[in-house]
Amino acid sequence: MKIGILGGGQLARMLIESSYKFGFDFKILANEEDSPAGMVTRYFQKGDYNNESDLIEFAKDCDVITLENEFIDYKKIEALEKLNKKVYPRSKVIKLVQDKFFQKDTLLKAEIPVADFVKVENKEDIIKFAKEHSYPVILKSRTMGYDGKGNYKIDSESDIEEGIKTLKARGELMCEKFINFDKEIAVQAVRNHKGEIEVFPVVETVQKNHICNIVRASKNLFDEKIVKKVNEITKKILEQLNYTGVIGIEMFLTKNNEILVNELAPRVHNSGHYTIEGCYTSQFENHIRAILDLPLGNTEMTSGSAVMINIIGEKESEPDMEDLSGVLRNEKTYVHNYRKKKSLPGRKMGHITVLRDNLNEAEKIANECRRMIDV
Amino acid sequence: MKIGILGGGQLARMLIESSYKFGFDFKILANEEDSPAGMVTRYFQKGDYNNESDLIEFAKDCDVITLENEFIDYKKIEALEKLNKKVYPRSKVIKLVQDKFFQKDTLLKAEIPVADFVKVENKEDIIKFAKEHSYPVILKSRTMGYDGKGNYKIDSESDIEEGIKTLKARGELMCEKFINFDKEIAVQAVRNHKGEIEVFPVVETVQKNHICNIVRASKNLFDEKIVKKVNEITKKILEQLNYTGVIGIEMFLTKNNEILVNELAPRVHNSGHYTIEGCYTSQFENHIRAILDLPLGNTEMTSGSAVMINIIGEKESEPDMEDLSGVLRNEKTYVHNYRKKKSLPGRKMGHITVLRDNLNEAEKIANECRRMIDV
Repeated sequence: MKIGILGGGQLARMLIESSYKFGFDFKILANEEDSPAGMVTRYFQKGDYNNESDLIEFAKDCDVITLENEFIDYKKIEALEKLNKKVYPRSKVIKLVQDKFFQKDTLLKAEIPVADFVKVENKEDIIKFAKEHSYPVILKSRTMGYDGKGNYKIDSESDIEEGIKTLKARGELMCEKFINFDKEIAVQAVRNHKGEIEVFPVVETVQKNHICNIVRASKNLFDEKIVKKVNEITKKILEQLNYTGVIGIEMFLTKNNEILVNELAPRVHNSGHYTIEGCYTSQFENHIRAILDLPLGNTEMTSGSAVMINIIGEKESEPDMEDLSGVLRNEKTYVHNYRKKKSLPGRKMGHITVLRDNLNEAEKIANECRRMIDV
Repeated sequence: MKIGILGGGQLARMLIESSYKFGFDFKILANEEDSPAGMVTRYFQKGDYNNESDLIEFAKDCDVITLENEFIDYKKIEALEKLNKKVYPRSKVIKLVQDKFFQKDTLLKAEIPVADFVKVENKEDIIKFAKEHSYPVILKSRTMGYDGKGNYKIDSESDIEEGIKTLKARGELMCEKFINFDKEIAVQAVRNHKGEIEVFPVVETVQKNHICNIVRASKNLFDEKIVKKVNEITKKILEQLNYTGVIGIEMFLTKNNEILVNELAPRVHNSGHYTIEGCYTSQFENHIRAILDLPLGNTEMTSGSAVMINIIGEKESEPDMEDLSGVLRNEKTYVHNYRKKKSLPGRKMGHITVLRDNLNEAEKIANECRRMIDV
């Protein structure tokens, strides 16, 4: 069984690490041989996943193909599907998710709660929307946004022109009501072809400069009612999309305990890295199980609480992440080094997960450990 | 950091799987490129670890070297040490363990309890030993024995000639008192250069045709006094040998709760495969930590009980172990496929670990799962 992964980043790397035990082979398509995932497999093809001939060449000896990011052109996935290649998630899902307006519109039509939004063609569309919903509003590029890139907060009419100017190179725009949330939460869920679904624990995510920084998972972090509601929404989304694989769903939890879906990521997700050690089956293993239509693994937590902290680059440097002794001195503390050659501000270089019964204790240690690594 | 492993079997494979997360590279020296470990790394050298020039070539770009079996000629390890290469375990330990007579003699001198034994040069040595200890006795080849190979049970004087005939091609012999044990138990322990030690839970092992078949681990499997005694013995052995890395120690537990050390394995050990999912840090990860002198990971169990069952070949065949759906339908059940091209009677093809609060339940499921795989 050879599993092809489009992209060679840390998500691909962790997919491979999770599932060598099953005896599968993994093949990577990426531009750099020394990519995080390329370094842990014998099967590598240098190439561009948006180049159709590279993609078709790559697919030849793959039994099933998956992806680690949603920015691949869905038409390329369609081309593979036409050759009867198994690709998960399917082109239809990628197409839908790639465009945030279509994504939100689909969710709305499926009666899944989302913040009010509108398509934007010109300045007047924003003024009109803001009149109905009052400032601030969020101007978003419909495609290619991630880690806060492609979003612009508009506090008053005078910000609109700058907002449009900043984002218009990214393509079409949309506008959303600004949600004054209490917490940002996220959940990973997995569905196989048969339609079996497992939902991982609901987690709280803490962003820093619009990048996921800390993830808190704990057995009693949220009221039962909230967990139930998140689970219902999540299952509805998976079924609505006829989804195969792991999906990451970002949501807002408001002060009135209202839940609004913010964004879907059709892949394993940064908010689920804690599942590697924190759950009996990781999101990575469950993604592989799902795309092969194997039964899904148990997603319960292995301890009371888990905190994941990202190791995000702070400067341009060639990072030395080999001395892990300070971090590893803490028990039930796990460090993942993605092996990126170069650190840059905002680049995800690795992550640390700490398991404890007590959430605050886990977070304290996670923060201490993060400070020991200079990237 | 590039870690070299001499040998490409399943132990090497699981060492690699356990520690890609740290960002290390792994290089394998083995005769077959399609060895279990060779299939999961980019760095492979075809060669024989008992050929000194292959070994020296291999060592050139390795920062540290370890081994997955103790049958490598210790003089070859010495040669690497003379080149200032870091190799763990050290040649001195390998030398000692390779010869079961020296091994037992060292343990005895360190006041570690072992069954009575004697060096055998001829038939009379056995007759004399049996007169003192009464039949049955076990005739053993001093070197190269594993999975029951190299042992011969002598029930009476009339068996002696056949025993010597069977074993003499393997080299020098020794004789041991036959222990009518209550249980065979085992423990893995790990020590880094600094001298920090972690001992994994004591487990019960069940052999089938002299090959480890089932391993039972459970939080309350043994009386506290026995665990304490095993821990004392284990630490003494590690310190006595000035050991670095994971060691597997097989022991007998007699009906009078006497503990006798049967055998040392200077490497990760089949009785510790359950630690991958069953403990917060696996024996494999802890071995890598130890040889790099990193702090050792917590060895507590992640659930009440764990049962590991080996997938041992029963016939010559090209095994198809890809349909894992029957096994994976059971929650907290993990399967490892070593990717051996060919199954043979007695060959270790993989293993299954089941986690449960209740030990008997775990074992029942492990047995059911094993029956689903035809190798």
